[in-house]
Amino acid sequence: MKQYKIALLAGDGIGPEIMNEAIKVLKAVEKRHADVSFDLQEALFGAAAYFETGKAFPEKTIKICDEADAILKGTIGLSHEQSQKIPVDEQPERGALLPMRRRYNTFANFRPVYLPKELSFFSPLKEEVIGDGVDFMIIRELVGGLYFGEKKTGVDANGKRYVKELLEYDEEQIRAIVQVAFNTARSRKKVLHNIHKSNVLKSSVLWNEIVGEVGQDYPDVEVKHILVDAAATYLCLDPKQFDVMVMENMFGDILSDLGGGILGSLGLMPSACVGPEKSYYEPSHGSAPDIAGQNIANPYSMIGSVALMLDMSFGMKQEANNLWQAMQSVFAKGYCTPDLAKGRDVKLIKTDEFGDMVVLEL
Amino acid sequence: MKQYKIALLAGDGIGPEIMNEAIKVLKAVEKRHADVSFDLQEALFGAAAYFETGKAFPEKTIKICDEADAILKGTIGLSHEQSQKIPVDEQPERGALLPMRRRYNTFANFRPVYLPKELSFFSPLKEEVIGDGVDFMIIRELVGGLYFGEKKTGVDANGKRYVKELLEYDEEQIRAIVQVAFNTARSRKKVLHNIHKSNVLKSSVLWNEIVGEVGQDYPDVEVKHILVDAAATYLCLDPKQFDVMVMENMFGDILSDLGGGILGSLGLMPSACVGPEKSYYEPSHGSAPDIAGQNIANPYSMIGSVALMLDMSFGMKQEANNLWQAMQSVFAKGYCTPDLAKGRDVKLIKTDEFGDMVVLEL
Ligand SMILES: CC(C)[C@H](C(=O)O)[C@@H](O)C(=O)O
Ligand SMILES: CC(C)[C@H](C(=O)O)[C@@H](O)C(=O)O
Repeated sequence: MKQYKIALLAGDGIGPEIMNEAIKVLKAVEKRHADVSFDLQEALFGAAAYFETGKAFPEKTIKICDEADAILKGTIGLSHEQSQKIPVDEQPERGALLPMRRRYNTFANFRPVYLPKELSFFSPLKEEVIGDGVDFMIIRELVGGLYFGEKKTGVDANGKRYVKELLEYDEEQIRAIVQVAFNTARSRKKVLHNIHKSNVLKSSVLWNEIVGEVGQDYPDVEVKHILVDAAATYLCLDPKQFDVMVMENMFGDILSDLGGGILGSLGLMPSACVGPEKSYYEPSHGSAPDIAGQNIANPYSMIGSVALMLDMSFGMKQEANNLWQAMQSVFAKGYCTPDLAKGRDVKLIKTDEFGDMVVLEL
Repeated sequence: MKQYKIALLAGDGIGPEIMNEAIKVLKAVEKRHADVSFDLQEALFGAAAYFETGKAFPEKTIKICDEADAILKGTIGLSHEQSQKIPVDEQPERGALLPMRRRYNTFANFRPVYLPKELSFFSPLKEEVIGDGVDFMIIRELVGGLYFGEKKTGVDANGKRYVKELLEYDEEQIRAIVQVAFNTARSRKKVLHNIHKSNVLKSSVLWNEIVGEVGQDYPDVEVKHILVDAAATYLCLDPKQFDVMVMENMFGDILSDLGGGILGSLGLMPSACVGPEKSYYEPSHGSAPDIAGQNIANPYSMIGSVALMLDMSFGMKQEANNLWQAMQSVFAKGYCTPDLAKGRDVKLIKTDEFGDMVVLEL
């Protein structure tokens, strides 16, 4: 009997709604496996936690996460106006999400950009651009760079406000993520796109040096160097050329959201944030306060994050695949939640109905 | 009689070819205006300059630029392999382009993303996404941020290589570009999209503060705040929602190239780099070493940069419009250079034929 403790951090906005569907799916998976049991531990996180406890990542939540085998996170964040009511350093991103990433050193962020041909209608890209579908993996360094460098704001001698923040990397950090990327490339098409900006940034110069060194151990993997700006162009013009892409934190933030654009919605992009000891899983999108509480958000990326967790934290690859297929086939049968439908001719379903149908498909 | 001195920096790769077409067009414009004369001064710049003089931005070129009323720049840069033959600090970007931006303090970079409905076939986006065409302006801060912050590389006490680079802004720099953006928004649709990452970066917190302050003077302009990652998603999903966008240097580098992706090619994006005293104009794309010397590159963005120069440096707005229209109508008549044709059913023309046709249309 395998027992897994899972911390559930529903978060803000649509977080609780889509988390419900993840729980539904986890319970269904548990039922199908006599030898697996999930111990689900809900905990406060984000703005919800701040308003209740004064802390966006409260002690009690930290303890639950520390003791968990994996963490499943919903969404965090408030509208621009609501955010202003929370002191800058307790806002959910700075007060909860980044501290969690740092605490568990979840340096490797996997963001699959996957759209089978049958679902290409979701994409804003032309059919001939999508071709047989899009399937690539963005691997983003998640605990370094500008995100965690020292920040200084102040007023200079002339009364001028200024800000300085550091983009920092050392070779160990870079090597760790680059190795993950090479391994992933090796297990897929053996091509790695290295995204950088070495014509301007010295951090990219070091980054590329390490890519060259690590690459020595992977003679079977071809490395293609591409500037981050050019990558933005090509992701839009011809995403099919990519298979595995690796990049530093801020570039990964922007390009992975561009990946969501290619898919037609960030709602179609789950993600895994992997650390040496613990990993957490989360949708790549925000908390969509504008549609929260209406039971209309698509739980695809939340349930997809469950699939990633089953695969990467619990070694249940087959069941993860089943989950992906179940979700695809709900779409393929013409069902869709309103947030993704956008006036298309589909059979509209609610958030909880999507979850029910996925369970049925399983 | 108005006499304008123009420095011509053809640069590397396809630079000289497309610069020839710019010269052709400038001469045609001069002919049409009895009261205007252009004094064209060619000068070495980029890798071409480095190999000839040992400097990417040689003294002689600096002098010509200093004395010019405006600078027209082609493209710079070499292939990844060729670049390695030049010491890092003399590589064309670090040795020529960035020093030029700094010297003339060209802080305001205008990158029009413009695709009329008739040319929507160039775009990888679906017809319903392009709708009546795309027409927005990216305004990018060009002489601050990570590009010009202090950079430090070294080896720490444990023998680990590290790098630190500063993202720096002060309120004056931010105010200058934000004012330009508000003025531009005022002259267009009175909506300004402010692109930031204030949930992580303290530089964005200061940036947004200044946007709020400057905005007081522009009660007629509506400001919409959008995170840089979300902007990447929406540029792809629904670019029509944008009219004027303002952002810091690195974000602008990435998102403006995404703009090129939306257009179908960076070859369709000219740009203006405006300083308090002097401005320079350049295509947004690179030097395309793979197609250099073949007379097949499209000179659209180069000639478009001439149009921007006529408008913004010489006040010849009408003639600038004529130029835009001349180029659009070459395309509309079904002519296209091979680099943009991509297997479409068009009448193929060469780089110099495109220039000839533009002159004819004028
Ligand atoms: C919420 C925010 C801090 C976060 C980031 O910038 O990493 C998000 O955009 C993401 O991509 O996971
Ligand atoms: C060539 C490079 C230094 C430059 C930049 O990063 O600014 C280019 O990409 C651009 O956008 O003009």
